[in-house]
Amino acid sequence: MKKINFFSGPAIIPNSVLVKASESVLHIEELGLSILEISHRSPTFQHIMSQARLLVRQLLGVPSTHEVLFLHGGASAQFYMVPMNLLKPESTATYTDTGQWAAYAIKEARKFGHTHIACSSAQNGYRNIPKTLDIPTDSAYLHLTSNNTIYGTQWKSFPKSTVPIVCDMSSDIFSRSIDVSQFDIIYAGAQKNLGPAGTTLVIVRKDILGKTGRDIPTLLDYQTHIEHDSMFNTPPVFAIYVCYLTLQWLAEQGGVSAMEQRNKEKAALLYAALDANPAFIPYADKEDRSLMNITFHAVNEAVSTRFLDICAAAGIVGIEGYRKLGGFRASIYNAMDIAGVKVLADVIASVKD
Amino acid sequence: MKKINFFSGPAIIPNSVLVKASESVLHIEELGLSILEISHRSPTFQHIMSQARLLVRQLLGVPSTHEVLFLHGGASAQFYMVPMNLLKPESTATYTDTGQWAAYAIKEARKFGHTHIACSSAQNGYRNIPKTLDIPTDSAYLHLTSNNTIYGTQWKSFPKSTVPIVCDMSSDIFSRSIDVSQFDIIYAGAQKNLGPAGTTLVIVRKDILGKTGRDIPTLLDYQTHIEHDSMFNTPPVFAIYVCYLTLQWLAEQGGVSAMEQRNKEKAALLYAALDANPAFIPYADKEDRSLMNITFHAVNEAVSTRFLDICAAAGIVGIEGYRKLGGFRASIYNAMDIAGVKVLADVIASVKD
Repeated sequence: MKKINFFSGPAIIPNSVLVKASESVLHIEELGLSILEISHRSPTFQHIMSQARLLVRQLLGVPSTHEVLFLHGGASAQFYMVPMNLLKPESTATYTDTGQWAAYAIKEARKFGHTHIACSSAQNGYRNIPKTLDIPTDSAYLHLTSNNTIYGTQWKSFPKSTVPIVCDMSSDIFSRSIDVSQFDIIYAGAQKNLGPAGTTLVIVRKDILGKTGRDIPTLLDYQTHIEHDSMFNTPPVFAIYVCYLTLQWLAEQGGVSAMEQRNKEKAALLYAALDANPAFIPYADKEDRSLMNITFHAVNEAVSTRFLDICAAAGIVGIEGYRKLGGFRASIYNAMDIAGVKVLADVIASVKD
Repeated sequence: MKKINFFSGPAIIPNSVLVKASESVLHIEELGLSILEISHRSPTFQHIMSQARLLVRQLLGVPSTHEVLFLHGGASAQFYMVPMNLLKPESTATYTDTGQWAAYAIKEARKFGHTHIACSSAQNGYRNIPKTLDIPTDSAYLHLTSNNTIYGTQWKSFPKSTVPIVCDMSSDIFSRSIDVSQFDIIYAGAQKNLGPAGTTLVIVRKDILGKTGRDIPTLLDYQTHIEHDSMFNTPPVFAIYVCYLTLQWLAEQGGVSAMEQRNKEKAALLYAALDANPAFIPYADKEDRSLMNITFHAVNEAVSTRFLDICAAAGIVGIEGYRKLGGFRASIYNAMDIAGVKVLADVIASVKD
C-alpha cells in the first residue's frame, strides 16, 4: 500500500511522474535504451533539457533578462556559488538569518567577503520572520530564504530593496506565484517541490555576473552554464528528466496559481486542526506560518506516542520533526493531495491529551 | 528491441540493474514509497550508502588509510576540488597531458597554484601515453588520467613516484585490478563503469588533507564528507542507488579481476577485426590502446557511410567518435557483454573499401 508521504525532502513525487520515470529507466521504447544509458548530447536528452528550462520559464514567468539553469548538486552548493560569483573580497553581502539553512549560507559567504546580518530570529528559535530589516545600500546583495523548512516559517511578501536580491526557494518554489523580476538569483534544490535529489534549479539575471574580478573555477561560474545551456559538462540526466516530468504535471494541474490555491487549502486544514486541539502546540508565529512545512509539538510524551501510533496505522510517514528541533513536521509540497492532508488532519483531531 | 550501446558516457548499464532500478522508482515494496521519495536519513538509504561504500572497498581492496566517498557532480568537479584541497598557492602540481580531460584538469589547477607538465602527447594528437616523465620531487602531487576516453589510450602501468599520485579513473575504474595504496586520490564520474550521471566516486588517503591553509567552502572540503560519511548534505540518492546495484552486479560477476579478463577478450576481438581490415585505421598507438574505448577512422567517406548503415541495421548505437575528433569509438565498459562486441566485430569485418 502506498504510504502518505510527509517527508521534508527528498519528498513526495506525483504518482504519474513515478510511473513514467519507472518505464523510462527500463527503456524508452522508441530508443531501445534506458534513460540512464543515453548520451546527454542525444536529441532525446537535448529535448528534455530545453523543454524543462522552457517550462520553468513559462510556469514562473521568467523574464528574458534572466537565464534558467539546471546544475549539479543541492541548494547548499549555491551557498558558496552565490558569493563566489557576486561578492568582491572587500564588499559586503547582507543576509537575513531566519533559520538553519540561512545561517549556513552566511557561514559560506564569509569565506569570500564581508557579511552583514539584516535581521535574525535566532533568539526566539526562528519562530518568526523579522519585520524590520537593516539593509546597507551598498550591499553586494540581500540574501533571503523564502521558506524555512525546519521551523515552518515563510516570507509572505518579500522586502523591497534597491540592492540585488538572492533567494533560496528550495522548499517553496512553484508553490505560489512570484515576480521573478524582483530577484537577481533564485535557487532551489530539486528534492522538495521539483523532483529527486541531485540537481538544483538556478534562475539568474544575466547582467549581474562577471564583476568580482575573481578567477572562478569553470564549473562554479554561472556564466559557463549560461553559455552552454546547462550542458557544459555531463548534467545529472535522470534528476533533470524527473524534474521535466514534474514540471509537465504541474502545467497540467493548472500551473503555479492553481497550485497556490490548493496549497492554501491544504495548509488551512492542518493549521485549523492543530489550533482546535490543545493536545498540540504549533511552532511558528501565526502570521509567518509556512504553507509548505507545518511544524508542531505534542503537549507531552504520551500524546506524542499516541499520535505517532495512529499516524503509522493510517499509513502516514515522514511526520517526525527535524532531528535538532524535535516534535513534528508535515511537509505538504505540491505533490501532496488534499485527500492525504485530510487523513492527517483527522488523525490530529482524534488525539486527545 | 534493445540496442547494442557503445556510448562513451552516460553509457550502458547491466539489464538486471535497470530492472531493479525501474521497480524501485515505482515503489520499494516494503516501504510503500519510491526510491525517489525517501529521506536520505531513512534506514533504507543509510543501508544503500554504507553498502555501496563497502562494496567499493571490497572490490578494489581499498586500504584503511583511504576513505570512500560518493559526491555530487561529475569528475570535472574534481578538477578544481583536487587543487583546492591539495595545492598551496605557492606550490606546484605536476600534470600529465594525455588528452582533453587532462588538459582541462590542468587549466583548473592553475587557478589555485602553479602547474608543471610532466609530459604531453598533444603534439601527435594524443595518440600515445608518453614514456618519459619529468616529475619535480617537490610537486604537491602528480595527476594522471588513467584512460583517455576520447583518444582511446590507457596507462598500462602507472609511473612510480615519490610524490602523491592523483588519478582520474572515470573511464576505467572497476575494469581492471589496481593497487589503491599507490594513489592518494582516485576519482571517477559514475556514468561510464559505475552507474548513471550525477555522482562521482572519490577515494582519498585521509592524511593528505588539511595542509593548504586555504579556507575551503564546506562542501568542497573532502574532510567534510569524510567526517559525515558522504551524508553532510542530501546526496544524489538515486544515482548512488544505481551505483550500489551495479556494484552488487559486479561482485556477482566475479569482481574486478574477472571483469578485467573479460574486458581484455572484448578489446582483443575489436582490435583484431580492425587490424585485419585495411578499410579502417585504429587511432591510438598499439602499445597504449585502451581496453575501454576503441577509437578508429574509416579510410574514406564511402566506407564510413556504409559502416554506419550496417551498424544501424545491426542495432548498434553510440559508435560515433567524439565530436572534435571525428571517426568512430566503441566504448566497451564492464556492462557490455561479449555477444555485443562480437556483433560489432562482425560488422567491422564485413565492411570493405
